[in-house]
Amino acid sequence: MIPQRAGEGGWKTNLKVVLVAPRNPLNIGAAARATANFGFSRFAVVNPYEVAFREARSAAGAAALLAAAEEHASVASAIAGARCVIGTASLGHREMKHRIDTLPFAARRVRTALAGGEVALLFGSEKFGLSNEDLDHCHWLLRIPTDELCESMNLGQAVAVCLYELARSPRAPAAPRGPRPATAGELEQLHAMLIETLEQCGYLNPVTAASTRGKIRRLLLRLHLIGEDARVGMGMLRQLLWALRR
Amino acid sequence: MIPQRAGEGGWKTNLKVVLVAPRNPLNIGAAARATANFGFSRFAVVNPYEVAFREARSAAGAAALLAAAEEHASVASAIAGARCVIGTASLGHREMKHRIDTLPFAARRVRTALAGGEVALLFGSEKFGLSNEDLDHCHWLLRIPTDELCESMNLGQAVAVCLYELARSPRAPAAPRGPRPATAGELEQLHAMLIETLEQCGYLNPVTAASTRGKIRRLLLRLHLIGEDARVGMGMLRQLLWALRR
Repeated sequence: MIPQRAGEGGWKTNLKVVLVAPRNPLNIGAAARATANFGFSRFAVVNPYEVAFREARSAAGAAALLAAAEEHASVASAIAGARCVIGTASLGHREMKHRIDTLPFAARRVRTALAGGEVALLFGSEKFGLSNEDLDHCHWLLRIPTDELCESMNLGQAVAVCLYELARSPRAPAAPRGPRPATAGELEQLHAMLIETLEQCGYLNPVTAASTRGKIRRLLLRLHLIGEDARVGMGMLRQLLWALRR
Repeated sequence: MIPQRAGEGGWKTNLKVVLVAPRNPLNIGAAARATANFGFSRFAVVNPYEVAFREARSAAGAAALLAAAEEHASVASAIAGARCVIGTASLGHREMKHRIDTLPFAARRVRTALAGGEVALLFGSEKFGLSNEDLDHCHWLLRIPTDELCESMNLGQAVAVCLYELARSPRAPAAPRGPRPATAGELEQLHAMLIETLEQCGYLNPVTAASTRGKIRRLLLRLHLIGEDARVGMGMLRQLLWALRR
């Protein structure tokens, strides 16, 4: 069991640290330990190298946290309950399709999001970082300001620095007001129905379908739909699909 | 060669990261990488487990920095040029003889010290941290504010968090004015001469000599001697020793 802490308003329990496709048991263990070091308690791995995950679980340091860690087969499953999904990235070579904020400013945005509900913070594999497909699930990206001569950080250390910065201010973040934003799970459903509709009506070109799926996912994220909007959208699409299939 | 960076006023080159008795090559490599990640360039190990240091040197990630790393047989030798020596510690069980400041406040003090000259930041071994003898060399201690339920951090991650916080503000710290403080090397000489004098005059009790040496070392650090004072003190002690030996 993960001990609950008192007097912090529980905002820390809204953060889920998600390692996507980690390969090295030492890094999994180090990331889990950093999560516990800074008072966070939710930890998930997506599609880990199984041997590594087993080895990490048997390692010392953050046994309780690792025992309660979630294991998922896909990013979509790991983030289903999240209202906000944030990816960690280096500037690197990648063509940028997302807003990128740099620590410490990015941490202020994460804290605000944490006051409103579940936030998933995604870390990619040691070797490749997050894939473009992983990034398509993210509302925005966070970057640790490292030196241009040695930019890429070790996974466990990147987790430690991000969580240190999130926990740096002891005050609980203020909860935003307004309607509940759609969760990643609702958006995933909406996305699947929209893709199916576009397939049915012949909009999707089989050659470019994969890239179109990514574009539409990012478009949906940019809309910042509230839960109610997502449900309305799904109702429309259900009706459209019924009509198209006739 | 460590590339020099322009436009930062060189304050980062005043920091020396010192790992005391590290045992694990992965941790040495991770600590070196974090040092390079945040734009620092001076790295030293004291009395490392030799195999570990060799393995770390052959690892990827911070090759240039590790190739230029210093290796010392004692803490005194590693810190000889430093005007300020700061140890990293967890609250733990240890009886506290030093002022301890917590990040991020501690980082402001380190940055001020960096503006004035060489600063050594000491990290202890993975298993035991810094020994009491190591701590006797420190002007004050720095602590990363971790959760009381999982307090102890991984070595590489502790280095990463400390250096992230030091580099967090992009502005160079303002240099303090006034006379040059004594270096750790000058204080070490003064300490050795004072101990010898106290031995010669029968002040040192052989049973408690080790603890007295530590007490006197901490006392000298608390005096914040300037270089000139240290030289005057050594002149007095030289004369005293000459008289005692007659």
